[in-house]
Amino acid sequence: MCGIVAITGSSNAAAGPQLYDALSVLQHRGQDAAGIATDDHGRLALRKDNGLVADVFRQKHMNRLAGGQGIGHCRYPTAGCPSNAEAQPFYVNAPYGLALAHNGNLTNTAELVEDLRQSDRRHLNTTSDSEVLLNIFAHELQQKPAGTPLADAVFDACDGVRRRCRGAYAVTGLVMGHGVFALRDPLGIRPLVIGRRETLQGVEHMIASESVALDALGFELLDDVGPGEAVWADAAGQLVRRPSGAAHRPPVPCIFEHVYLARPDSMMDGVSVYKARLRMGEKLADKVFREASRLGIQSDNGKPAGIDVVMPIPDSGRTAALSMAARLGVPYREGFIKNRYVGRTFIMPGQAERRKSVRKKLNPIPLEFAGKTVCLVDDSIVRGTTCTQIIKLAREAGAKRVVYCSAAPPVRFPNVYGIDMPAPEELIAHGRTTEQVAEEIGADWLVYQDLADLVACSREGNPQIERFDCSVFDGVYPTGDIDAGYLEGVREKRNDAAQTAALASR
Amino acid sequence: MCGIVAITGSSNAAAGPQLYDALSVLQHRGQDAAGIATDDHGRLALRKDNGLVADVFRQKHMNRLAGGQGIGHCRYPTAGCPSNAEAQPFYVNAPYGLALAHNGNLTNTAELVEDLRQSDRRHLNTTSDSEVLLNIFAHELQQKPAGTPLADAVFDACDGVRRRCRGAYAVTGLVMGHGVFALRDPLGIRPLVIGRRETLQGVEHMIASESVALDALGFELLDDVGPGEAVWADAAGQLVRRPSGAAHRPPVPCIFEHVYLARPDSMMDGVSVYKARLRMGEKLADKVFREASRLGIQSDNGKPAGIDVVMPIPDSGRTAALSMAARLGVPYREGFIKNRYVGRTFIMPGQAERRKSVRKKLNPIPLEFAGKTVCLVDDSIVRGTTCTQIIKLAREAGAKRVVYCSAAPPVRFPNVYGIDMPAPEELIAHGRTTEQVAEEIGADWLVYQDLADLVACSREGNPQIERFDCSVFDGVYPTGDIDAGYLEGVREKRNDAAQTAALASR
Amino acid sequence: MCGIVAITGSSNAAAGPQLYDALSVLQHRGQDAAGIATDDHGRLALRKDNGLVADVFRQKHMNRLAGGQGIGHCRYPTAGCPSNAEAQPFYVNAPYGLALAHNGNLTNTAELVEDLRQSDRRHLNTTSDSEVLLNIFAHELQQKPAGTPLADAVFDACDGVRRRCRGAYAVTGLVMGHGVFALRDPLGIRPLVIGRRETLQGVEHMIASESVALDALGFELLDDVGPGEAVWADAAGQLVRRPSGAAHRPPVPCIFEHVYLARPDSMMDGVSVYKARLRMGEKLADKVFREASRLGIQSDNGKPAGIDVVMPIPDSGRTAALSMAARLGVPYREGFIKNRYVGRTFIMPGQAERRKSVRKKLNPIPLEFAGKTVCLVDDSIVRGTTCTQIIKLAREAGAKRVVYCSAAPPVRFPNVYGIDMPAPEELIAHGRTTEQVAEEIGADWLVYQDLADLVACSREGNPQIERFDCSVFDGVYPTGDIDAGYLEGVREKRNDAAQTAALASR
Amino acid sequence: MCGIVAITGSSNAAAGPQLYDALSVLQHRGQDAAGIATDDHGRLALRKDNGLVADVFRQKHMNRLAGGQGIGHCRYPTAGCPSNAEAQPFYVNAPYGLALAHNGNLTNTAELVEDLRQSDRRHLNTTSDSEVLLNIFAHELQQKPAGTPLADAVFDACDGVRRRCRGAYAVTGLVMGHGVFALRDPLGIRPLVIGRRETLQGVEHMIASESVALDALGFELLDDVGPGEAVWADAAGQLVRRPSGAAHRPPVPCIFEHVYLARPDSMMDGVSVYKARLRMGEKLADKVFREASRLGIQSDNGKPAGIDVVMPIPDSGRTAALSMAARLGVPYREGFIKNRYVGRTFIMPGQAERRKSVRKKLNPIPLEFAGKTVCLVDDSIVRGTTCTQIIKLAREAGAKRVVYCSAAPPVRFPNVYGIDMPAPEELIAHGRTTEQVAEEIGADWLVYQDLADLVACSREGNPQIERFDCSVFDGVYPTGDIDAGYLEGVREKRNDAAQTAALASR
Repeated sequence: MCGIVAITGSSNAAAGPQLYDALSVLQHRGQDAAGIATDDHGRLALRKDNGLVADVFRQKHMNRLAGGQGIGHCRYPTAGCPSNAEAQPFYVNAPYGLALAHNGNLTNTAELVEDLRQSDRRHLNTTSDSEVLLNIFAHELQQKPAGTPLADAVFDACDGVRRRCRGAYAVTGLVMGHGVFALRDPLGIRPLVIGRRETLQGVEHMIASESVALDALGFELLDDVGPGEAVWADAAGQLVRRPSGAAHRPPVPCIFEHVYLARPDSMMDGVSVYKARLRMGEKLADKVFREASRLGIQSDNGKPAGIDVVMPIPDSGRTAALSMAARLGVPYREGFIKNRYVGRTFIMPGQAERRKSVRKKLNPIPLEFAGKTVCLVDDSIVRGTTCTQIIKLAREAGAKRVVYCSAAPPVRFPNVYGIDMPAPEELIAHGRTTEQVAEEIGADWLVYQDLADLVACSREGNPQIERFDCSVFDGVYPTGDIDAGYLEGVREKRNDAAQTAALASR
Repeated sequence: MCGIVAITGSSNAAAGPQLYDALSVLQHRGQDAAGIATDDHGRLALRKDNGLVADVFRQKHMNRLAGGQGIGHCRYPTAGCPSNAEAQPFYVNAPYGLALAHNGNLTNTAELVEDLRQSDRRHLNTTSDSEVLLNIFAHELQQKPAGTPLADAVFDACDGVRRRCRGAYAVTGLVMGHGVFALRDPLGIRPLVIGRRETLQGVEHMIASESVALDALGFELLDDVGPGEAVWADAAGQLVRRPSGAAHRPPVPCIFEHVYLARPDSMMDGVSVYKARLRMGEKLADKVFREASRLGIQSDNGKPAGIDVVMPIPDSGRTAALSMAARLGVPYREGFIKNRYVGRTFIMPGQAERRKSVRKKLNPIPLEFAGKTVCLVDDSIVRGTTCTQIIKLAREAGAKRVVYCSAAPPVRFPNVYGIDMPAPEELIAHGRTTEQVAEEIGADWLVYQDLADLVACSREGNPQIERFDCSVFDGVYPTGDIDAGYLEGVREKRNDAAQTAALASR
Repeated sequence: MCGIVAITGSSNAAAGPQLYDALSVLQHRGQDAAGIATDDHGRLALRKDNGLVADVFRQKHMNRLAGGQGIGHCRYPTAGCPSNAEAQPFYVNAPYGLALAHNGNLTNTAELVEDLRQSDRRHLNTTSDSEVLLNIFAHELQQKPAGTPLADAVFDACDGVRRRCRGAYAVTGLVMGHGVFALRDPLGIRPLVIGRRETLQGVEHMIASESVALDALGFELLDDVGPGEAVWADAAGQLVRRPSGAAHRPPVPCIFEHVYLARPDSMMDGVSVYKARLRMGEKLADKVFREASRLGIQSDNGKPAGIDVVMPIPDSGRTAALSMAARLGVPYREGFIKNRYVGRTFIMPGQAERRKSVRKKLNPIPLEFAGKTVCLVDDSIVRGTTCTQIIKLAREAGAKRVVYCSAAPPVRFPNVYGIDMPAPEELIAHGRTTEQVAEEIGADWLVYQDLADLVACSREGNPQIERFDCSVFDGVYPTGDIDAGYLEGVREKRNDAAQTAALASR
Repeated sequence: MCGIVAITGSSNAAAGPQLYDALSVLQHRGQDAAGIATDDHGRLALRKDNGLVADVFRQKHMNRLAGGQGIGHCRYPTAGCPSNAEAQPFYVNAPYGLALAHNGNLTNTAELVEDLRQSDRRHLNTTSDSEVLLNIFAHELQQKPAGTPLADAVFDACDGVRRRCRGAYAVTGLVMGHGVFALRDPLGIRPLVIGRRETLQGVEHMIASESVALDALGFELLDDVGPGEAVWADAAGQLVRRPSGAAHRPPVPCIFEHVYLARPDSMMDGVSVYKARLRMGEKLADKVFREASRLGIQSDNGKPAGIDVVMPIPDSGRTAALSMAARLGVPYREGFIKNRYVGRTFIMPGQAERRKSVRKKLNPIPLEFAGKTVCLVDDSIVRGTTCTQIIKLAREAGAKRVVYCSAAPPVRFPNVYGIDMPAPEELIAHGRTTEQVAEEIGADWLVYQDLADLVACSREGNPQIERFDCSVFDGVYPTGDIDAGYLEGVREKRNDAAQTAALASR
């Protein structure tokens, strides 16, 4: 997962610090690497490295990131790309000088690489599919005859990308000396929004993964980039959009953005993530009542479903937990205090690696647990290792019973659209019933959201959306090109990466 | 303000990584500089620098911080000590090799400096009162005749410190090759606790500013260091305590720890900070009702005091806001989303400094504000600049009325016991009535906690405590040695520091 | 001025450390920036930065510079390119992935830049003519139809470079996944040699600016790259050469290489630099005798031309001084000791910049000067500031008379083929007679080599060479395209650069 | 071996940059670590690290090294102290604040360490005898009653050092807020000189290991610090000297300084190193004639002793080679060109360490060797590895016969006075006759200087000197306290260090 951003317009303000601020706001989308490319009066200025946004950019870098337009990127740790060579944006110098930032994943990379090598004679220097995407775009753009108006040429090149590339991609790009562009895949799986700001100097545009980046910089949310749509913006304040041929088709957005990835205060494809999460909490309360009734759970304390208190797993479980507590009619409390400053775990010479301890991240307040039936609300359960430790902490703090609620259904399938998920066999719900998972993680009662409920929560925000990408929950891949062989390849690559990492850390 | 820690005992574990973990948990007490000193088999290993704990220590430093005992420190930005030379721990090589970490502030530093120079012929290399404290201790220890058992000698030197130093001090120290010690000032203004852990290798002790450091590392909270008490612990697992002469006297703890400084999950002098804050929210609700009645505020919407929703200013306002909402009988919501990754503000060449924007730190969710009377709960109001911006944000997000509640009374006086506060004239409540402050910050209604209520909230946790240091609220300095001249000196020093900083940032 | 190198072949040895060693040996050709690019099994590994070779490359960089073939570059400080963005090698990813290192200067850069922008739509990111050269080559190579054997395609692209680029250029290049190439301008102004090494693993080739790089790495000097010749070498140990059309034409080498730039132990175009310099000393002795006779200089001490002792200005004057002393029949002594470790000159806050003092670099041994007529031998005189200080030092050390000898004629004209020379008005011989220069620098007697003698010294090493580029001495530019307008442009650019540097250092 | 320096006086100039310049000039005495301590208006400023002077100090460090007085140090790689913790100057804060830099070696360190621990209760944090020396001085100074004039107190403390410490020591020290001092051991084994400079602001003094540091900074050489003498200088320009009790006793200087360690342009104890080396060349020529006659060597080419040409091993053999050539009546040539920029040797992953090659450092000019009998002049032969490779190079370059001359006698014994020498068994002359060494290194003829001749060369410069420390040649240790047990300890420590280093470099 990644965060991407682009800015251009007729302000005199430097793009560098603004892209930096935007990336800070998008940092939750990727904390592994960061990069900014600006167009400093026709010279590319580029800084990218592994690390948090705040660590990658120092004043000396910012001084170099001059000029009024540019793009930025932050990257989540992805299996198999530990190197800073794979940080984005990527750059090629012909034609025009192009830089590109990408959020998503191409599903026909191997074939595209072969084409680029053989027919296009373009050299790829990394294993990143984003570099592939840039070179496909560059090649398509180079084919346009000289004299083509640039916006048209860029749109035609975007058509070429759509024709040749499969998978999920939200893209921001920079054409040196000319402007910035953006592109979203035909289904609109990954999010992308357009913002606009008027200043005394004129009009500026920002394109970003989430609307919170617009909010923080004082841009007004204009619209989502449509599925398959290409956008061109330049320093004169001009904005040109070329929607995909299939007009008015609604997107098929990734529902995991609403569950966990996105900031709650973001608007995505017309859906308020915050409201969607409030609804998730309510539906979860309803499910608890239904299940209590189905299972014949009796309240021994006169409380709804016997629950004394509802607590979020901070920070992502907070919104749903609040509405759930209200719907259940049970007090809401913050029983876990999060340590905001947990650092790396050091290994001393001759010492074995210490297990990463949740205890260093979360500290329970015993008063809130002692003798109670606590209902812990999490956004989702993936590997199950963290929630197992949390439940243990809750019991040590005195909890009588632990009810664990997941605002999302069981995660059972790999993601192929740019979210870094463990291999299926590492998913705790893989091949286990809810009861088995409950036992495994040590919960007295485990309640998962129903998928239909989850979809309803998101859809209520924008009924025009007909479908969501729910593939990690139901194994249905909306691009229609994912077969068992492809998934097996993903699994092997992940395992290889894990093994390499394990070796490296010895 | 600072966090301090010490560890020793008969485990084989390296002290470095454990002190690092402890400092991570104490990081909220000081984010400006950090340092660790360990006793590596008789060699001092020391690493300290400006920056967050996670930035100051790299694997290469940790490799050097070997040995089984040591001390650590993290420092809050203090007026007048921007340099990393002033990071702690400090070290002197005679007698024995001594390192020391200090939280607090001495109020007779000038006189002590003169004594050290003239009589003790000891060189001070910084303006830090912590270096003064270390040299007083070193000089006193050096006077003890050879052959004195070390714990006794250390306790006698601590008596010397208590005799010569005035102010607030919580201290951890390291005697090379022998053990660690701790000392708390005669009133016990700054907090300090003792923890104990049994492992297969034997008994270990940790002394720390807050009990959360003990929790995170699996130590059991044994006791608070008493007011004026000295403690000695060694690698053999031995713990020796020498209470102050005035036996059984309760401490006079700083109440601002309970309001804001401490982590909610800490126990301090027998008081659960979390419970104290829950009580603050309840008392605040009561005050709202009283004030509403006194002022004749009519609910136009049938809600208690007309309030539609209670929201915390994250993160420190959360605990009080929850209990306040419950007592008021009004929904609790998290209407502001905090950006966890806000970085530094870059200045581009030729550009004026941009005002630090709250907008980059907090983003409102308009849905929760639109058309409502919102009650915002903050821990306290100091300068008033942040809350002014927050109220503006709330209005832009659609709030009809803004009720601003402070869990603490108006801050009106400087702190001389180690908390970095602005000069009085920069405090928004300095010389203003509550109504004037409300107008200044743009609140429709401003409610401050009453001081008596605040004290009651804390005292309920441990009724043995007779007095608190409430000096920032009432101007009563419990050490009894603070006169107008001293306060004027503090004011001047602050202004000088501010001016120097302003010049430096040009 | 720069040093360049390329290596490839069928050894298993890593190219990185070997290129590093070669650059260390070529370091005298450029101490401002250094870079290495290797072909790590189809991935480009590139490290370049400002600084000495020993400072730019650390073990971590070297670990990345894997693979068996690559190129390297070290750069002299050149007017107008202070930034590390201009360090070489340069890289473009299409076609094939190409890296290039260049020593020399193009004289039609402005026109080429325009062509690249307009017709070739290639983006240039620096002001370096080396990036221009790479893009011209890349564009020409891209035009070759698919299926052309690569060596042929590269040679054709080299033809294109020769057709489009004017000036002086010696080039090494890397075609990712295929091999390395080299090219020398049609006149062969800048030097370039080919070396060969046989190991158990097969045959390797190295191409370098000077033969000393071959010596140091155990390569045998095969030949000079001819004027206008292109060379291709690959990992299989194959070497293919395509001489320029104008067969057997001798080069027109830069004579300043023989005077000063090259290491004495280098062979260049068949000329031993060492022998040439010995001859320069002898001719200089003859000139001294001629001048003494012409000027009627009487020996007052029975010594030849009254000279008591001959001393070199270390290190570059040493070879000529030795043979001059022998021919004069006068003792040779090393009266100046060079400080090998002179560092940068620090400026303390508030302090004016201190003049760079020769006294820190050279220390005279008074014994060798006291009461004597000393003959100081320098390679050449450019600005005259250093020799003025040296003569002052000699007098302070007790010299009775100072005879200053320059192994080269007066430097009076700018260099346009890649040597960084001051603007004409900064040259001490610009518009001054020899007598006036002598007065200016404080010499009792100043003797310049005659140009005809200098040429004879070099030509004796390889009589096939008909002409040399002596433009800094006689203003005759052998490429035939340098007019007054161009020279004026050079002058202005230099002055601008000097002014910028002056401003930057304030 | 080390270089030390101190500066103080009534100039306004910053001490930092001047100490930096002085250390640059003394860099040949120690290239492993460097450090500067200044007295910045009563605050110690200290920067020290491993590396060359030019690498250790950056502008940011220099900005901190403010104030008008201070001391500096550069250190040679010494067996057993690879860590930067052992870089100098060392510092203690009581009494007064003291910093110290030391060149030499104490021979009763173990005993002193015990005293410091037990009686003086001072903590040592390294294994450096220089830290011991500082603490002895500090303890002695602390014993002086308050009110003693500082110069007297310092001189008395110096007496204490002389009384307690054995071995060789030249020391510079800084008393914070007061002045600088210097001390030389009772025999004056290691060198130390005093310089004086008058400026408009007043008088300044510099004390340094070698007079070249004075020359470079414009100080006049006042005198050597006498054997056992202590010197005090302060910011007012005052210089106070307290000679050792044994008045007028000449020093017993280390003769290896004259052979190799010192810069040729230094004056030491009244001896011009340059002149001494010229005499060494002449005596060596005489020895060659004697030996030729003794061995019946016939000239087959009509040249003196059959020698065609004399060449130095650059740079240290140059002075002696010149005078030797003149005395022999044979041409002098520089047949080896030194590569000034040889960097570190990189090891690629999986590759075995490459042998350090002399070929990278020295390149022969074949013309000067082909068919000739060459006489190579070296300062001394220690391990014999380098000269073996040089002789091989000479033969490869075509030399018919190689005569190898050492300006010093065979090195056969360890040094205990601060010069880092290999263990005896690693010395090539250890247990070998001259003929056996010749065979081992591959020389056709090996000529060593006679020790009596060497002593005569140095003594001629100052006939007052009665004895020299020639221990590495004759095993006579002038301090009289070195027995077989001590030497065995040195040997073991060296071997341990070598083994540790070997392990570390794996």
